[in-house]
Amino acid sequence: ASYLCATMSNFWTSLRMENPGYCSGSFDGLHHPSDDDDDEMVDIAGATLDFSSTDDVPPLSSGVYEEHNGTSRTAGMNGSGPSRLVDPLEDPLPGVGTYEDFNTIDWVREKSKDRDRHREITNKSRQSTVALLHSISDAFSGWLLMLLVGLMSGALAGGIDISAHWMTDVKGGLCLRGFWFNHEHCCWLSNETTFQERDRCPQWQSWAELITGKSEGPFAYIVNYLMYIFWALMFSFLAVILVRAFAPYACGSGIPEIKTILSGFIIRGYLGKWTLIIKTITLVLAVSSGLSLGKEGPLVHVACCCANILCHLFTKYRKNEAKRREVLSAAAAVGVSVAFGAPIGGVLFSLEEVSYYFPLKTLWRSFFAALVAAFTLRSINPFGNSRLVLFYVEFHTPWHLVELAPFILLGIFGGLWGALFIKANIAWCRLRKTTCLGHYPVIEVLVVAALTALLSYPNSYTRMSGSELISELFNDCSLLDSSQLCGYKQPANTSDTGVDNSLADRPAGPGLYTALWQLALALVFKMMITVITFGMKVPSGLFIPSMAVGAIAGRLLGVGMEQLAYYNHDSVIFKGWCSQGADCITPGLYAMVGAAACLGGVTRMTVSLVVIMFELTGGLEYIVPLMAATMTSKWVADAFGREGIYEAHIRLNGYPFLEPKEEFEHSSLAVDVMRPRRMDPTLAVLTQEGMTVGEVESLVESTHFSGFPVVVSSESQRLVGFVLRRDLLISIDNARKRQDGIVSASQVVFTEHTPPLPPDAPPPLRLRCIMDLSPFTVTDHTPMDITVDIFRKLGLRQCLVTHNGRLLGIITKKDILKHMAQMANRDPDSILFN
Amino acid sequence: ASYLCATMSNFWTSLRMENPGYCSGSFDGLHHPSDDDDDEMVDIAGATLDFSSTDDVPPLSSGVYEEHNGTSRTAGMNGSGPSRLVDPLEDPLPGVGTYEDFNTIDWVREKSKDRDRHREITNKSRQSTVALLHSISDAFSGWLLMLLVGLMSGALAGGIDISAHWMTDVKGGLCLRGFWFNHEHCCWLSNETTFQERDRCPQWQSWAELITGKSEGPFAYIVNYLMYIFWALMFSFLAVILVRAFAPYACGSGIPEIKTILSGFIIRGYLGKWTLIIKTITLVLAVSSGLSLGKEGPLVHVACCCANILCHLFTKYRKNEAKRREVLSAAAAVGVSVAFGAPIGGVLFSLEEVSYYFPLKTLWRSFFAALVAAFTLRSINPFGNSRLVLFYVEFHTPWHLVELAPFILLGIFGGLWGALFIKANIAWCRLRKTTCLGHYPVIEVLVVAALTALLSYPNSYTRMSGSELISELFNDCSLLDSSQLCGYKQPANTSDTGVDNSLADRPAGPGLYTALWQLALALVFKMMITVITFGMKVPSGLFIPSMAVGAIAGRLLGVGMEQLAYYNHDSVIFKGWCSQGADCITPGLYAMVGAAACLGGVTRMTVSLVVIMFELTGGLEYIVPLMAATMTSKWVADAFGREGIYEAHIRLNGYPFLEPKEEFEHSSLAVDVMRPRRMDPTLAVLTQEGMTVGEVESLVESTHFSGFPVVVSSESQRLVGFVLRRDLLISIDNARKRQDGIVSASQVVFTEHTPPLPPDAPPPLRLRCIMDLSPFTVTDHTPMDITVDIFRKLGLRQCLVTHNGRLLGIITKKDILKHMAQMANRDPDSILFN
Repeated sequence: ASYLCATMSNFWTSLRMENPGYCSGSFDGLHHPSDDDDDEMVDIAGATLDFSSTDDVPPLSSGVYEEHNGTSRTAGMNGSGPSRLVDPLEDPLPGVGTYEDFNTIDWVREKSKDRDRHREITNKSRQSTVALLHSISDAFSGWLLMLLVGLMSGALAGGIDISAHWMTDVKGGLCLRGFWFNHEHCCWLSNETTFQERDRCPQWQSWAELITGKSEGPFAYIVNYLMYIFWALMFSFLAVILVRAFAPYACGSGIPEIKTILSGFIIRGYLGKWTLIIKTITLVLAVSSGLSLGKEGPLVHVACCCANILCHLFTKYRKNEAKRREVLSAAAAVGVSVAFGAPIGGVLFSLEEVSYYFPLKTLWRSFFAALVAAFTLRSINPFGNSRLVLFYVEFHTPWHLVELAPFILLGIFGGLWGALFIKANIAWCRLRKTTCLGHYPVIEVLVVAALTALLSYPNSYTRMSGSELISELFNDCSLLDSSQLCGYKQPANTSDTGVDNSLADRPAGPGLYTALWQLALALVFKMMITVITFGMKVPSGLFIPSMAVGAIAGRLLGVGMEQLAYYNHDSVIFKGWCSQGADCITPGLYAMVGAAACLGGVTRMTVSLVVIMFELTGGLEYIVPLMAATMTSKWVADAFGREGIYEAHIRLNGYPFLEPKEEFEHSSLAVDVMRPRRMDPTLAVLTQEGMTVGEVESLVESTHFSGFPVVVSSESQRLVGFVLRRDLLISIDNARKRQDGIVSASQVVFTEHTPPLPPDAPPPLRLRCIMDLSPFTVTDHTPMDITVDIFRKLGLRQCLVTHNGRLLGIITKKDILKHMAQMANRDPDSILFN
Repeated sequence: ASYLCATMSNFWTSLRMENPGYCSGSFDGLHHPSDDDDDEMVDIAGATLDFSSTDDVPPLSSGVYEEHNGTSRTAGMNGSGPSRLVDPLEDPLPGVGTYEDFNTIDWVREKSKDRDRHREITNKSRQSTVALLHSISDAFSGWLLMLLVGLMSGALAGGIDISAHWMTDVKGGLCLRGFWFNHEHCCWLSNETTFQERDRCPQWQSWAELITGKSEGPFAYIVNYLMYIFWALMFSFLAVILVRAFAPYACGSGIPEIKTILSGFIIRGYLGKWTLIIKTITLVLAVSSGLSLGKEGPLVHVACCCANILCHLFTKYRKNEAKRREVLSAAAAVGVSVAFGAPIGGVLFSLEEVSYYFPLKTLWRSFFAALVAAFTLRSINPFGNSRLVLFYVEFHTPWHLVELAPFILLGIFGGLWGALFIKANIAWCRLRKTTCLGHYPVIEVLVVAALTALLSYPNSYTRMSGSELISELFNDCSLLDSSQLCGYKQPANTSDTGVDNSLADRPAGPGLYTALWQLALALVFKMMITVITFGMKVPSGLFIPSMAVGAIAGRLLGVGMEQLAYYNHDSVIFKGWCSQGADCITPGLYAMVGAAACLGGVTRMTVSLVVIMFELTGGLEYIVPLMAATMTSKWVADAFGREGIYEAHIRLNGYPFLEPKEEFEHSSLAVDVMRPRRMDPTLAVLTQEGMTVGEVESLVESTHFSGFPVVVSSESQRLVGFVLRRDLLISIDNARKRQDGIVSASQVVFTEHTPPLPPDAPPPLRLRCIMDLSPFTVTDHTPMDITVDIFRKLGLRQCLVTHNGRLLGIITKKDILKHMAQMANRDPDSILFN
């Protein structure tokens, strides 16, 4: 294998990428093509709206930071706390209170900062009318931002839908009336289209017709086949090249990263404008290329990019990481809302699956934004049917209690497939990360695209796009009688019952049998290809492929049940509710239940999934079947491993994510997890007085810790506060440059009042302002389940451990995650970030 | 006034109640009629299912506590923590780890206890098959419990609906075919009923017909009037007497108390079986009596009672206050689900309005239970229409953007009314609490019932029940053309356009004008009477009256708009979308929007309200009008006071409730809030060794604190742990009785190893096992906003305050609430409980 790799490496040098696997998490050493002008998650460069001026220079040396006036407490308060870090009265330094890339934010500090800001504005608003107006505009800025996010995401989603629809059709042919019309639109404009054959019209010409002039025959078929493969390769090549060249973060579904970001992690540029532009374009290309992927996950990413960019318009959100994450939570809801046309489902998806901190305020705003986005999308009307939802279905037949058995069967299938898919996909992604496979992402995409195109063209169910397939499978036969799926035989004895019986169960005809064979093949193909497609270096969502697998399985089972009921309507099972000539089995409902089960198995969503499906059908009638299937699917899949696909990818990538759903199961105590361990040297601490600048610097340089506790004296170990490494370095650096007389021998003082110094000593460096005076502490006997709960609920970065009032050690989020990995017999070093 | 009071007091001695205002919160000194056999919130009397044996004897003297075997950690772990309190290895005492009535639970300790229990079961499950089965049944017991809660609540709600429907009709007459038939059912069975006059049939006879034989004429009217008043008085008298005699807790809506209980407060008997039985019966009586009240809030209480009682079936929930509250959160969702037939809305209501701690697991389970309950109710089919929802509506006309203006106007009306209602109702309730009015609850109810009956009979819109009224106002005219509300004139010029135009806007006729007048009077009457009705000593919900007020206002505005559009269809506003003969204004939609606005103004619900309304209509179409109205309503009402009616009642009653929605706005520090204050004596602490039993006892007796910190020594003030007063008293008492040699001179030892004692000293009393080794601490400089956040998110009872590692003071939930009251210029002593 390595020989092959080497050969390919020589052959494809021009396509080889500098970085092996930039999508699978090894972000260290990532080549960021647009490093110098990408807008970041943390923008400390002031209130400018000119994105190109947003610089990436580390704040230590940039010095362009302008203090905004809203964050100070009232001058009369002499108290102190984390919020005091940017108190303008004490002349804060640029960069103090910000975070480095790939670090976790301190939720408590950020929220406290925002409350200070709010308090300041409220206090000022009593003084003048201008300030009052400012206060009001500040209060409504959140709603305005939501409106903008909704409008922008809705518009983008509409654009994506329309372009993807057109480009998918371009693989088959062109419209003579104008190349910008898609197939449906082209024929809809034609007068020669009959209702029966909506898809055929002279204006729409396949590639064979355009090139050879013939529309039938084996030669035309081959030409169409080749053109299909050509376009698929073309689109996927463009997609992967664009991602590679301009925005490596645009690949994948984005949901694992967004979950991590929402939990408080910082990945700069992940939600920047380049990612947005490239992800939007490449999403269209990837979907159109016919690869087995969907656009739902990436739409969440796109909506989050919109939200992050629009946050720059409002000081309140630009400068506060916690507030910004509230907006991003809402944006996740917007993404699902536009993907499915299900605003309530979107909000619940954000609540159940993506968000970490979801206060009630965010619930209201998410809902508002999701509604705005859904209505923007509807006014663009990309599906051409004035419907909000992606798959509009309407069933007319109630279900019977006996049918719960096949529904639960579908749930078991969904759970099994979900568990299997996660295992297979993670194994494949790990292979890509660790072997030379990851060195050739472009080739990988091209090979998979070629394979997909080659195999899917002959089968009409794989040739059509995923959402078209699902839509067809969901629908009742009365609505699409021209389809092969409805190739039933009209039984002779029901001819006298009239037209009303078109919905009745009928025996399957040869058309349906062909369709069933094709569907079975499509099922196997989709199950295989999705495993290797998800995780490639193109934008790829998982919702549509998963739902397609489930819908096919469900439809197959549904038709099977229908035939069973038709031929055995007198048996014990069907007697009483399924008499001859009645419409008692709806195969479309089975497809829907199957889709929900498979999606549930893969993502482990439950309530939000049921609500999305409920919004698609608009009837409470079918909630019980959906509920039964998703719950079964979740339980079955959980039996094989409790992680959904997103959590599995988060873990694969080593992000520091503290899963809020899972309970900490072990009986460790804080003392077992904290650093230093029993064998290690003692904890590196600063004393509140008595240390010189030189001593502090050498302590900081000799360690790699991101913060240091400050104690009264190293004998008593009584805790005073906590100082972050970054703040300490910036402050000392700044003082050496600008403050007179600060030399290495100057004392560093963290106390409120400067202690008496010898007369010849240099002036002391007072650093109380950068010290967090309210560090979180737990005792050494605190059970880890409580500690983990505190970390989760308060969003801590670190917590100090005391014993009988003496400082003993420190627990960071990374320590907890490493401990959890160790307890689950996984490699603790898989946790990469802090 | 006091003379009048005294006179009335003499006159009505027989009706006078021992307790002034048992519903308005002064629970101290409450006479609990069924004290000795009511099942409590905290049941420590073992796993028995015989509720009558559940005793209320304080655990200090009962001694019947049996330790269950599931809560110990593995024996190998030598750690300790709050969970260790009931460690069987250390022989725990009965009552240790339980709570007193009107106290707040410690969420952290309860959750930790449950995790220990779970861990124990998981560990055991690896050892034997029986234990494995036990573990599986334990894991599914939550789901089973939810199923039972759903079934029981659904069945009860169905029973309540049917009985209330029948009894409401009994006020008007009786069915000759059988007295147990209600009006609709009676006439539905009759063959002589025409579709046009569904309400008239010979089998249903009014009281005048039954008594005098005449159905028309002024005399018959008077007889009917008097019978109506008689029955109203009868029902309300029965209701208040039953509440007074058997379950004082059954009065009111129950939602404020349930919110408080869910936040961790304990009110014994509030969710007991007597409350359930009496609330169910009296709810039917109160609703039937024609008082201006609804059954939605009480249904939430009923569902919570069911859940609490069913919790006794499962050890996991019976013994853990935190787990039980998860079930109660789900039960709140069930209550709304059966009240409106809106399961998703119910879950969101629980999430947005009622619950305090709502993990994802509870979300899934709530949803499941809400669905089960909704389907149970539907299979009982109390509305006789196979519909799940209370008010089923279907609109056919889209709304136009211009209509947003009247919708927002309705929102403003709803907000104003909500704010006004809260202020008036709270003022009235305060009056009832502080003056002699509260001494005569029975008379109050009778007077209000008489007044209501007297005033509401002449007006057909107030005579009908609240839900009938709302249902009629919501509906389109095409469906109820026989109603007065649809007394339109058929314009001459549209006769040629055919039948399809029955929905078109038409000019109002005399019937409609009469209806409008009646509606306007009904509006004024409802607005007045609801203020004095809500808070009386009968079960009373606020949803239906609020919605009725809004629906009337909305319908009035809707008809107004319709007429405006009809007569001005060429004006600038209506041109383009509202041509002549078109159906452009739907007055029913206005009624619906108005109802949402008023309910929103009173309760400040937003998302859940919109979702409930969405479930009633089943179309995403009308979400934007509803959203606009509820948001406006919330904003307008918030401008007058940020509290909803439930929060206002919680505050009125002095419950210790830390509002999760409101931010702490002030800049205090922990040191400003903690006890002891600067002037006070120092904090009462125990030292970990050196104190004798007698010293400890005298310290405990000389103070009223509910817990004491344990320090290393009183000089160093270094914190070791925290001991609860209750646990301490029980342990000492028990040791004196059972342990040899424990006298007043015995040393109390909290250390792990007993210190060396003089040879003649009595044996020490080791109490480490009852000490919480991981008390929460904050530093004195911690801003109060962060402290409040910690209390809210972790559900703390108290938190210790340190300065540089030394113990300085303590902050309890009550201290925080008092501080918040002080900051808001309210009386801090209004917070009654801890």
